[in-house]
Amino acid sequence: MVQTKILPSADNAHQYPLLIKQLLLSGPRYAPDQEIIYGSRSRYTYRDLVKRIHRLAHALTNAGVQAGDTVAVLDWDTPRYLECFFAIPMIGAILHTVNVRLSPEQIVYTMNHAEDKLVLVHDDFLPVLEGVSAELETVTGYIQLTDNDSAQTTGLNTHGEYEQLLAQADDEFDFPDFDENSVATTFYTTGTTGNPKGVFFSHRQLVLHTLNTSGSLAAYDEMPMLRSSSVYMPITPMFHVHAWGVPYAATLLGLKQVYPGRYEPELLVDLIKEHEVTFSHCVPTIMQMMMATESIKTADLSNWHVLIGGSALTQGLCNAAARLGIKLFTGYGMSETCPLLSLTHLSPQDLELPLEQQTAKRVKTGVAVPLVDIRIIDPDGNPLPHDGETKGEVVARAPWLTQSYFKEPEKGNELWQGGWLHTGDVASMDPDHTLVIRDRIKDVIKTGGEWLSSLDLENLISQHPAVAATAVVGVPDEKWGERPHALVVKAAGATASAEDIQEHLKQYVASGDINKWAIPEQIDFVEDIPKTSVGKINKKLIRDQLGQ
Amino acid sequence: MVQTKILPSADNAHQYPLLIKQLLLSGPRYAPDQEIIYGSRSRYTYRDLVKRIHRLAHALTNAGVQAGDTVAVLDWDTPRYLECFFAIPMIGAILHTVNVRLSPEQIVYTMNHAEDKLVLVHDDFLPVLEGVSAELETVTGYIQLTDNDSAQTTGLNTHGEYEQLLAQADDEFDFPDFDENSVATTFYTTGTTGNPKGVFFSHRQLVLHTLNTSGSLAAYDEMPMLRSSSVYMPITPMFHVHAWGVPYAATLLGLKQVYPGRYEPELLVDLIKEHEVTFSHCVPTIMQMMMATESIKTADLSNWHVLIGGSALTQGLCNAAARLGIKLFTGYGMSETCPLLSLTHLSPQDLELPLEQQTAKRVKTGVAVPLVDIRIIDPDGNPLPHDGETKGEVVARAPWLTQSYFKEPEKGNELWQGGWLHTGDVASMDPDHTLVIRDRIKDVIKTGGEWLSSLDLENLISQHPAVAATAVVGVPDEKWGERPHALVVKAAGATASAEDIQEHLKQYVASGDINKWAIPEQIDFVEDIPKTSVGKINKKLIRDQLGQ
Repeated sequence: MVQTKILPSADNAHQYPLLIKQLLLSGPRYAPDQEIIYGSRSRYTYRDLVKRIHRLAHALTNAGVQAGDTVAVLDWDTPRYLECFFAIPMIGAILHTVNVRLSPEQIVYTMNHAEDKLVLVHDDFLPVLEGVSAELETVTGYIQLTDNDSAQTTGLNTHGEYEQLLAQADDEFDFPDFDENSVATTFYTTGTTGNPKGVFFSHRQLVLHTLNTSGSLAAYDEMPMLRSSSVYMPITPMFHVHAWGVPYAATLLGLKQVYPGRYEPELLVDLIKEHEVTFSHCVPTIMQMMMATESIKTADLSNWHVLIGGSALTQGLCNAAARLGIKLFTGYGMSETCPLLSLTHLSPQDLELPLEQQTAKRVKTGVAVPLVDIRIIDPDGNPLPHDGETKGEVVARAPWLTQSYFKEPEKGNELWQGGWLHTGDVASMDPDHTLVIRDRIKDVIKTGGEWLSSLDLENLISQHPAVAATAVVGVPDEKWGERPHALVVKAAGATASAEDIQEHLKQYVASGDINKWAIPEQIDFVEDIPKTSVGKINKKLIRDQLGQ
Repeated sequence: MVQTKILPSADNAHQYPLLIKQLLLSGPRYAPDQEIIYGSRSRYTYRDLVKRIHRLAHALTNAGVQAGDTVAVLDWDTPRYLECFFAIPMIGAILHTVNVRLSPEQIVYTMNHAEDKLVLVHDDFLPVLEGVSAELETVTGYIQLTDNDSAQTTGLNTHGEYEQLLAQADDEFDFPDFDENSVATTFYTTGTTGNPKGVFFSHRQLVLHTLNTSGSLAAYDEMPMLRSSSVYMPITPMFHVHAWGVPYAATLLGLKQVYPGRYEPELLVDLIKEHEVTFSHCVPTIMQMMMATESIKTADLSNWHVLIGGSALTQGLCNAAARLGIKLFTGYGMSETCPLLSLTHLSPQDLELPLEQQTAKRVKTGVAVPLVDIRIIDPDGNPLPHDGETKGEVVARAPWLTQSYFKEPEKGNELWQGGWLHTGDVASMDPDHTLVIRDRIKDVIKTGGEWLSSLDLENLISQHPAVAATAVVGVPDEKWGERPHALVVKAAGATASAEDIQEHLKQYVASGDINKWAIPEQIDFVEDIPKTSVGKINKKLIRDQLGQ
């Protein structure tokens, strides 16, 4: 270790551990009267937010929660959830954001594994928990969440209803200081095999991620996503990587926030119109669903900026959004990375290009944000050139990467190798440092000794006007090792044949974008693309189904 | 201590200490071709910046600098200095930014106290060091900085000239990781009594200050100071609190930067025009000097945003700037606070007000930025209400406050009391959390049992059209304890008598802004207001002179 100089502090100097409570200092100072809105149900100010967080802290400790305990939340995207983002870690407890789209068995697995003590549960998820409550080994009690006048009756051991408990509690809580490396949040990632794995983040990591997110989403003039006049509505579930951490950043800045509750596409579009939402983030699937609504046709969305992540944004979807005036940007990250690693970066020169050429850049996964050290490497760990062609695994260092998996250090040792977090994604890097994700390592199609990116192929197929959605997987082939196999969902009312799609792809052979052998022989038209619980294409399931 | 949960890291997980080298990751990725300009002398790109920092690291280690050593810099505001901001801490050494406006005796004192080993010195400061070199106890060598073809000849033990040393060095240096609490920078604050005191900041503190500054100066739509299309030129010396830390933030974001060299008012204005500078920061004195130039009369400065700090911005100066289209904002902080604590915050409602009423808000010292915990307290340490009237001492907690004074812990124990940094400033806090600095505790005028703010009085006097600058101090008075005594510098060609100024102040008695007893009997017209080495009004000297 290098011998630097470290000087002593004065006797009374405050060491200032980075704690989530500090993220709540500035928003209410900047904008005490700014509103936080719950769909068409309720609205309150930042003054109220602070008081409600203090009240919630009392309600939690009254229910027996202590520092170090884990508190589970099963709710839609609501201001209540935002309050939990703050109050639970602020008392030194751990917020477990339960993925409500998991099967009951998986929910039980994650809640037992996380050792949840208290559970905050919305009426809609009460039946699930009532069915499995006997199997929940560590849970000692429940707080009910409702959108009605009173919560559903239940046989569970409930401390009462959230709003009633808040109303009874004092609005001043003395939040303690503690070690900034204390675990603040946990949630589970679902691979396509094995049990879900528990990712966890510390107070320090979330404070740093928030500072960086608020800066990165503000500073670039081509993507003014989080600025003082922005109106923010998340459309990534709050259980999924803290809605990408943006609610923390929006609160830090004192922005107007709109929480939509359940994700019903028509409702989402109506909320965007009604509250003049300027910034959202979502996975491509949700965007696709909103694009298919009637409401969107009559909306002026020219001021709506949307950060797309979670899976690849196709040029087809990006172009369709652009025709409605919607500005799409791309972010890259994963549950293990908190998640922000990179963001679309358009240079002044890019912005002068025709829109279609901008789209080609917007669908790329952008340039790494400040403080993120990122590389593409070969299988021996050597860094690869930024030439736009050479493909390698993406590895990263940053101040906000999960340090392991909860109680499964052996899995953490697969994630971290040689001091770098291994993403499992294959990418190339353009000379301007733009990251282009080509595939998941396990989804790359190995055909005739070459690597074929399933994402590249999906992107080209998506540009056929009759295609609403598509997925490409590799299937075993005696002669070539693997061959690509495409599933296509047709746009409403559109007609197309496999030959039409193949014909469409031939133009990209002519233009040099793909090789002739990349064109799939097998193209099936389907009603639906199988998805995982967080809306990603479930390629393992598709491969299994095609294999049968 | 609260018992929270801390989980182990995976074997190979990277702990990511916060280090200044990480601030250099993003700028060159975002904007490799963006330029860093040295007046009319030279310009280079971020690609070059990175290589030059690596070369400088080699030049430093070749000159014998090791981690833990202190390296002094005496230079004007140049890209060289920016390179030193990075390279010196990045090798684990400590950057001592020497205040070149101090007397030779004080320079010797600070350099010996800081234990400077290597000294980078510009031709212009060579004579000073040659005169005192025998007294420099720890210095082993010098590197010369020049703006000419070759450096001046000198009898000092020089390793050579900066550019030549860089040219000879390799452009790849392997910067190590080390403890984030390592000291990165030090510099000396000059009180009006006693020896200068050494403030110091760690890598962690500077990374956090930079993240916060870059976010805070970007996110507010009424003050778009640091955004991707901004052009930045510092007009606060780089030796003074790292030019308020803004060069780090500008580099993080990959902005165009212009370094002016020496501060010659006409030259500064010309540079702003030539490079279309959109953001600068300075003390009021420099602003005043630029306002008095001929150049400024023909400049379109409607896109120039200026952050004023260091001493109080008067309404007179703010109004005069507004008439030229210049947008002035205020920041508050001090050397010990790295410095950023608060920034002007105009709400949407404020922006709808007539400009003159905005000015009243712009001269206030703003709302505390994210992560800063700030209070005004009574002498017993009790927090005072935010009522816009009650005055108390400003105390703060934040992640970037100096933890003590270098080798003088007893002075650090005066600064830090009860876990809060005591600023020595007296302020009130408006109901919207806007901080209004009323005075230094030691400059408050105690008259007839009341506290009279010298700053308030200066502010009102400055609004008389014949007043270019003013200073008010308390002088002993047998009957009242103290009475205010004003010095006034008249604007060029203007005429006014003491009675005119008193008459002018009476309107504020009528409007209730001040009491009748606040009007000074003594108003002296002077050529110049005595200033400290960093351009603040030297009230101690004024009191001493008036006492004689």
